[in-house]
Amino acid sequence: MSLKACSIVAGRSTPGCGTAFHAVRPDSGESIEPAYHSVGPAEVDAAVQAAYAAFQEFGSSPGKARGAFLRAIADRLDAIVDDFVARTPLETGLPEARVRAEAARTTGQLRLFAGMVEEGSWVDARIDSGDPARTPAPKPDVRSMLRPTGPVAVFGAANFPLAYSVAGGDTASALAAGCPVIVKAHPAHPGTSELAGLAVSEAVRECGLHEGVFSLLFDSGYEVGRALVAHPLVKAVGFTGSRAGGLALAKIAAARPEPIPVFAEMSSVNPVFILPSALAARASEIATSLHASVTLSLGQMCTCPGLVIALRSPDLERLIERLAARMTATQPGVMLNSGIEHAYREGLDRLSAKAGVRRLTSQDSGAALWRVSGAAFTHDPALAAEVFGPSTLIVECNTREDMLKIARSLEGQLTATVHGEATEWAQHADLLHVLETRAGRLILNGVPTGVEVGPAIVHGGPYPATVDGRSTSVGTRSILRFVRPVCYQGFPNLLLPDELKEGNPLSIRRMVNGAIVEPR
Amino acid sequence: MSLKACSIVAGRSTPGCGTAFHAVRPDSGESIEPAYHSVGPAEVDAAVQAAYAAFQEFGSSPGKARGAFLRAIADRLDAIVDDFVARTPLETGLPEARVRAEAARTTGQLRLFAGMVEEGSWVDARIDSGDPARTPAPKPDVRSMLRPTGPVAVFGAANFPLAYSVAGGDTASALAAGCPVIVKAHPAHPGTSELAGLAVSEAVRECGLHEGVFSLLFDSGYEVGRALVAHPLVKAVGFTGSRAGGLALAKIAAARPEPIPVFAEMSSVNPVFILPSALAARASEIATSLHASVTLSLGQMCTCPGLVIALRSPDLERLIERLAARMTATQPGVMLNSGIEHAYREGLDRLSAKAGVRRLTSQDSGAALWRVSGAAFTHDPALAAEVFGPSTLIVECNTREDMLKIARSLEGQLTATVHGEATEWAQHADLLHVLETRAGRLILNGVPTGVEVGPAIVHGGPYPATVDGRSTSVGTRSILRFVRPVCYQGFPNLLLPDELKEGNPLSIRRMVNGAIVEPR
Repeated sequence: MSLKACSIVAGRSTPGCGTAFHAVRPDSGESIEPAYHSVGPAEVDAAVQAAYAAFQEFGSSPGKARGAFLRAIADRLDAIVDDFVARTPLETGLPEARVRAEAARTTGQLRLFAGMVEEGSWVDARIDSGDPARTPAPKPDVRSMLRPTGPVAVFGAANFPLAYSVAGGDTASALAAGCPVIVKAHPAHPGTSELAGLAVSEAVRECGLHEGVFSLLFDSGYEVGRALVAHPLVKAVGFTGSRAGGLALAKIAAARPEPIPVFAEMSSVNPVFILPSALAARASEIATSLHASVTLSLGQMCTCPGLVIALRSPDLERLIERLAARMTATQPGVMLNSGIEHAYREGLDRLSAKAGVRRLTSQDSGAALWRVSGAAFTHDPALAAEVFGPSTLIVECNTREDMLKIARSLEGQLTATVHGEATEWAQHADLLHVLETRAGRLILNGVPTGVEVGPAIVHGGPYPATVDGRSTSVGTRSILRFVRPVCYQGFPNLLLPDELKEGNPLSIRRMVNGAIVEPR
Repeated sequence: MSLKACSIVAGRSTPGCGTAFHAVRPDSGESIEPAYHSVGPAEVDAAVQAAYAAFQEFGSSPGKARGAFLRAIADRLDAIVDDFVARTPLETGLPEARVRAEAARTTGQLRLFAGMVEEGSWVDARIDSGDPARTPAPKPDVRSMLRPTGPVAVFGAANFPLAYSVAGGDTASALAAGCPVIVKAHPAHPGTSELAGLAVSEAVRECGLHEGVFSLLFDSGYEVGRALVAHPLVKAVGFTGSRAGGLALAKIAAARPEPIPVFAEMSSVNPVFILPSALAARASEIATSLHASVTLSLGQMCTCPGLVIALRSPDLERLIERLAARMTATQPGVMLNSGIEHAYREGLDRLSAKAGVRRLTSQDSGAALWRVSGAAFTHDPALAAEVFGPSTLIVECNTREDMLKIARSLEGQLTATVHGEATEWAQHADLLHVLETRAGRLILNGVPTGVEVGPAIVHGGPYPATVDGRSTSVGTRSILRFVRPVCYQGFPNLLLPDELKEGNPLSIRRMVNGAIVEPR
C-alpha cells in the first residue's frame, strides 16, 4: 500500500496545509519521506461533524454488522503486514519481530471485539416487566441496555505504533461500542499511522458504512488534539501516553461546558515486592526475570518494573549482584524517538543527583540499576516517579513494616508484583491488601510486562496510572468506557432496540425481572 | 426510638461542639427540639480513618454477610416506621402516606441489593486460563472481578429524607459493594437522619461488623462536606441535590492530589414532547397526567416535568386550557424548607420577568403554568433552567424542525418523555434519536415522575443531569459506581478471592475463557 501523506477526513484524503513534518529515523536522525502536514480547525470540525452524522446509524447498527467491520479492518491490516515491517522499524527503531507480534496483537484485539459484539450479550440488556394491575399505581414496563456515548477522540501512543494507535485497542473498543472514531495520529510514526488509517478507511467503504465513522488527523503539535477534546460533539477521549499529556487533555475536557471523560492511561512504576523466603529460594531466577522485564523493548513499556522493594539481606545482595551484572551487560539500543531518549537521560540525571541513590551500572551500559535505602526513599517522593526506559531502582528496607509503609505511600499503578513462597503469604496479607488498592493488576511470582489481551485482563489502575481508575484500556471490559446505560419506559415493541424486544430476536443473554435468562 | 441529637462516629455517639442548629417546621417556622451540633475536622477525620480501618475486612466480606447486614438495616428501619411518621412530616412537610411509601421504598432498595450480593454473580468474575506450554512465552493465569473502591462519602438529599438520604440508595449500593460509608446528613431533617443512622449503627453491631463501616455526621453548614470530599482516604462521593452543590463538590474532588469521582445527581427539566396525533387524540388525558406529575410532592422531584414542547394547534390550546384550569385549582402546599420555597419563588420571578413568557396561572395558585413561543425559547437558554417546584413551561413550536432544534439544544436530562400515536413514530424517529443522547431514561406515553426501583432502571443522564453520565443512582446498576475491576495474575488458589477460585465455591455465574459458565 502506498502512502499518500494525507489525513483522512471521513474517507477523503486531505493533505492539510499546516506545518510540514517528517518521521525521523531514531537510529540516524535522518528524515523519512514523505512530508506530512498538520491539519487545521476546519478539518477537525469536518471530521467531528461527519462522526456525529455517522453516529445515528452506526450507533444503532446490528452487532453482527459491527463485527464484520472489525473483522474487515483486521483482514486489511493482515494484508499489509509487510508494509508495516518495511516502514515501522524506520520510524520507531522497533525490530521486525516486534512489529509482526504487535500487528498480530492488533488484529487479535479487533477480532476479539468482533466476536463479542457479534454474540451481543455484552450490552447488559435488562427487562423489568410492567404490571398494569399494580396498586396504587400501575407498574410501567422498564427496559435498559448499554448504548454508545457518541464520537470518540483517540490519541495514538508512541510506544505501540499499532496496538495502541490508529487501529489499536481504543479504536477497536470504541468502534465495537458503536462510537465513530477520530484518531489524532502520533507524529513520531505518521507512515505507520497512515497505513493503518487507510486500512480502516477501506474497511468502512467495503462494509458500506457512513464515511464519518472514521477519520485520521495529522498534526506536528498540540492544536488538533486540543480542538478535538474541546469539540462539543466529541463525547469521550482515549489516550495512552505521558502523565503531562494525559492531564493536559483531562483539563481541557473538564473545562468544557459539558465535561467529558478522558480515559488516559498515563504512568506507572510497577513496583515489585520480593518477600524474604522468595529471595532466599530464587534470588538469581528473580534477577533474571526482572532483567528481561526491565529491558523488554528498552523499558519503553507502561508496565516496565521501575521499582523493586525488598528486605536488606545477603539474599538481596545476591539478587542485586546478578541483576547488576545483567544490566551492565545489556547492549544500548535505539529508543523510539529523540524526545523519549531525552526524557530518559533526564530521568537518569535526576536519579544520579539524588543523595542516597547509588548507581550500580556504568554510564554507557544499556540499562540502569540503582539502589537506595527504604528510609531515603520514603523521604523523597520524587524517587517514586516513572523513568520511562530500561531503569529500575532497588529499595532496601529494614523491616516488614517499612515495606508496608512504602506500599501505602505509592501512587496508583497499572500493576504491582509480589514474589513470595507459599509459606510467607499469610504473614504478608496486609501487603497484598494495600497493593490491591493501589493497582489495577496484581501479579504473583511473575513479571508485569506482557499484558495478555483477553476478557479478564485489567490494564488500568487508580490515579495517576489512569484518569479513571474504574476503567481498563485493554481487554473486552474496555468497551465499557464508551457506553452508557439508557432506559426505555413504556416503549411499544417496534420502537425498542432489537436487544430489548419481546421474543429476544437476537438470542442474547438478558436479565428479566432480576433473573438471567439464557437465549433459547 | 429516642433521639440523642448526636453524630455517630464509627458507632460512638458524638454530640459535636460546633454550631448548634434545629430542624424547622416548614409550615409554622417553629424550631423542633432537640438541638444538633456541627462536628469539626477531628470527627471527620476519625470517621474516615475508622472507615478505612474497616475497609480491609468489610471490602472482602462474603456477599452473604453483606446481604444479611443490608437486611438487618431494612428490618430495623421497618421497626421504627412509626418514629419516622412522627418526626419526618414535622421536619419536611411531607404527609404520612408519603413517609410510609418512602420508607417502604428505602427498605425495598436495601433488600434488592441484599439479594444481589447474596447471589453474588454481579461481581463479573472472569477467568482466562493459563497455558504454560504456549510459545514463545507461557500464558499466565489471569482472573478479575469488581472490587469495592474504598470509603464513600454520601450526602443526604432534602427532598427524599429516607430513600436518598442516610440509609438511601447511595448508602445501600456502597455498602452492598463493600465500601464503608460516611454520611453527611442534610441539616433540614436531622431527626429523621439520626433515626435512620441509629438503625444502621445497630445493624452494624448486630452483624458483628467493624464499627467504622458506618458514620453519620451533622453540620449546619458546608465545612464537614468539604472536608469529607477532600479527605485522602475517601475514594468516591454520592450526592443528590442542587447543581450548585454538586458542582462545588465535584470541584473539590477534582482538585485533590488524587482526584476521585463524584456521582452527583443534580438537575433536570425533564422535557415532555407531544406529537400532533397524540395531541389530537388525547389532549385532555395528557393534561390530566401532566398536572398530576408536575404537582406530585409539590414538584419537588428530580423528575418533575418542567418543559412541555408541542406544535401550535387548536389541540394544543385545548391541552393548555385544561392544564391551566387544573394548575389554577391546585391548592398551595408547604414546601420542604424555606430555602427551597425561596428558590422556587425566585424561579417564578425569573420567568415572570422574561419577555415573551406568559403566565397562565394566578399568583396565589398552588402551581404555575407558562407559555412561550419556540422562537423565544430558542433565543434564551435561561428558559431551559430548572425551577424546582410545581411549575411547567409550554413551548409552542411552528414546525417539526423547531421541535427537533429544541431537542438538540437541551442539556443532559434525567428523563425525556414523548407522547405519540403509533402512526407518527416513524416521522419522528430523529427526535427519539436526539433525545436518547440527551437523557438517561426515555418515556413514551407516560410521565417521568415515579422512578421504578429495579434492575433495569436508569436514574442518571448526561451532564449536567449528573456529573458522570455513565452512572445511575437508582437500581442495582448503581453499585457499579463504587467498584473497580481488579486483576489477579498467577495467584495460587488459596490467595484468590472466593469468587475467582477453582471449583467456583460460591456457585456464581462466571466468564471462563470468554464464555459464560452457569453455576452447576
